[in-house]
Amino acid sequence: MPKIFSYQQLCTFTHTIFLKIGCSTQDATTATKALLSADLRGIDSHGVARLVGYVRLWEAKRVNANAVCKVVHETPSTAVVDGDAGLGLVVAPFAMQVAIDKAKNVGTGWVSVKNSNHFGIAGYHAMMALPNDMIGIAMTNASALVAPTFSIEKMLGTNPIAVAIPAGEQPPFVADFATTTAANGKLEILQRKNLETPNGWVQTKEGHPTTNANALKEGGALLPLGGDVEHGSHKGYALGAIVDIFSALLSGANYGPWVPPFPAYIPMPENMPGQGIGHFFGAMRIDAFRPASEFKHHMDNWITRFKNARTIEGQANVIIPGDPERETEILRMKEGIPLLDAVVKELEELGEKFSVKIG
Amino acid sequence: MPKIFSYQQLCTFTHTIFLKIGCSTQDATTATKALLSADLRGIDSHGVARLVGYVRLWEAKRVNANAVCKVVHETPSTAVVDGDAGLGLVVAPFAMQVAIDKAKNVGTGWVSVKNSNHFGIAGYHAMMALPNDMIGIAMTNASALVAPTFSIEKMLGTNPIAVAIPAGEQPPFVADFATTTAANGKLEILQRKNLETPNGWVQTKEGHPTTNANALKEGGALLPLGGDVEHGSHKGYALGAIVDIFSALLSGANYGPWVPPFPAYIPMPENMPGQGIGHFFGAMRIDAFRPASEFKHHMDNWITRFKNARTIEGQANVIIPGDPERETEILRMKEGIPLLDAVVKELEELGEKFSVKIG
Repeated sequence: MPKIFSYQQLCTFTHTIFLKIGCSTQDATTATKALLSADLRGIDSHGVARLVGYVRLWEAKRVNANAVCKVVHETPSTAVVDGDAGLGLVVAPFAMQVAIDKAKNVGTGWVSVKNSNHFGIAGYHAMMALPNDMIGIAMTNASALVAPTFSIEKMLGTNPIAVAIPAGEQPPFVADFATTTAANGKLEILQRKNLETPNGWVQTKEGHPTTNANALKEGGALLPLGGDVEHGSHKGYALGAIVDIFSALLSGANYGPWVPPFPAYIPMPENMPGQGIGHFFGAMRIDAFRPASEFKHHMDNWITRFKNARTIEGQANVIIPGDPERETEILRMKEGIPLLDAVVKELEELGEKFSVKIG
Repeated sequence: MPKIFSYQQLCTFTHTIFLKIGCSTQDATTATKALLSADLRGIDSHGVARLVGYVRLWEAKRVNANAVCKVVHETPSTAVVDGDAGLGLVVAPFAMQVAIDKAKNVGTGWVSVKNSNHFGIAGYHAMMALPNDMIGIAMTNASALVAPTFSIEKMLGTNPIAVAIPAGEQPPFVADFATTTAANGKLEILQRKNLETPNGWVQTKEGHPTTNANALKEGGALLPLGGDVEHGSHKGYALGAIVDIFSALLSGANYGPWVPPFPAYIPMPENMPGQGIGHFFGAMRIDAFRPASEFKHHMDNWITRFKNARTIEGQANVIIPGDPERETEILRMKEGIPLLDAVVKELEELGEKFSVKIG
């Protein structure tokens, strides 16, 4: 039975924990908002359930709670940000703001980030562009769980891409997806329930197809979007590779199999070629292309036409990316956020350690 | 039995045909180079085999052979180009050059294009960035063949994305892929050979899974990368949608089900909301982020590490995007380009019409 917490309860708890590990009030607020956006939007694997993991990274001295983000190189439309080993939840909004400011000046802004840590959900950062009548883009690399087509080695993270696009009367278009067939969070749900995966999600350590949800733990790997080469896994692999290169090779972060792992108990890779993990952000001002009102009118038309496309019998309607997450957010703001018992227990233990009560 | 032509033979023939329909010498040269890059790189469906199709569009007055491309709106890092209904093969290199010039000035350049036609292979245009030590990006929308997840209506084109990234000692990374499970060209090959498709490539007109390679012709649709929702087709649909929006809604081209069809005999959609088809191009100067030599050193390391990743038994090595196409190009430059009998026959008929001999 999941227990229900109000958004405000989880906010207060999370904010206090970030203060306890030494974040400034402002950083704690920024990080809390970014982290809990995942719980609100229904991406439970990336929300408060990860708070313990972030604290462990701080305990392992891999997260600097007093990080000072810096622009270390720039042109009118680009920048590289050094995250100073800070929480990705703080570094990413800083870097996205740099992209937005550059877009205000010269039409677009593009920021690659090194020396950061996990940043929560990509969609949250991309959506920062929306109130500015801009398109927002966010991506990040992550520790290697994915085998490129034909390989048995884990070489890429689930490397998500998010793109947020404003509309007029309609809500915005917000795509946010891992470049794998299925995100690791979905695999973990099947593991817990002792269920098999569809084919094309994972492979065994020998690289054979399997539906064993524990294959990843047993030395296997997640598969790139497409699953196998017959179904275009080389495209998913290319997408994951592009995210890796934009996030880490443009900035000087670690890449490929050298990206530091999220669980603090896993040793760091040897001979790391960069600093921390890498992100990439973009902001494009709509009126750098055409008047925003014209664009929004056509976005409304696009969304309405796609929403009303004829469906396969039994399917209600075609989904516009971002709609399910926004509906979940409205619901959870009102009715609260359900947390699994195992998550509540971990959070309570964390609270005890820092003398903070949850709820 | 395919017949072999030298690159030079096909160049001379194609160039002459473009002159005959009224292109300037310069435009004919630009278009020929772009078109034949597909044949050289082994993407036979997008090369000289389409020349007849381009001429038919000109005959139908849908292609303007004397088009004058214009920048109709711009900021330091962005532009919208009006292609004046020209050949995409000419419009695209013009627009990509605008992106490159902007990147020289302010670090990056981003160009959305309206009022264009099919531009050949996306990879060719993206690769224009490479000699400038820039990353190149190219995408285009296309007439609707793809049903979004849960739909039976064809709403999106195969909407390809290409990203070209320079390396140092290693050849560049060049990804170029349709945002569907399989490109339409692969489907046509199976149709000709009377073979079935793997599952996840196409659906019937009722939206049911099928392995019938003729399903698309029989009212069905191509499927987004992923195939079905269990395998992430909503991600392929989102990618195709992003290409559509960047290419057409930023510029004022047609989008979704309103993109004009390539075959000139198919009537134009009703109530079209824009002009022609749309493209989107980007150029990012490497040294707008970090010194190019540093980046290239790490790209070499990335490529070498991925190429040497341990493989599934029986697989030679992990493929770096762009490697197979480059190898084909070297081979075909030396040994010639094989064309199917049906293609040769069409080209000979075209040649007769314009009194031009092929080969």
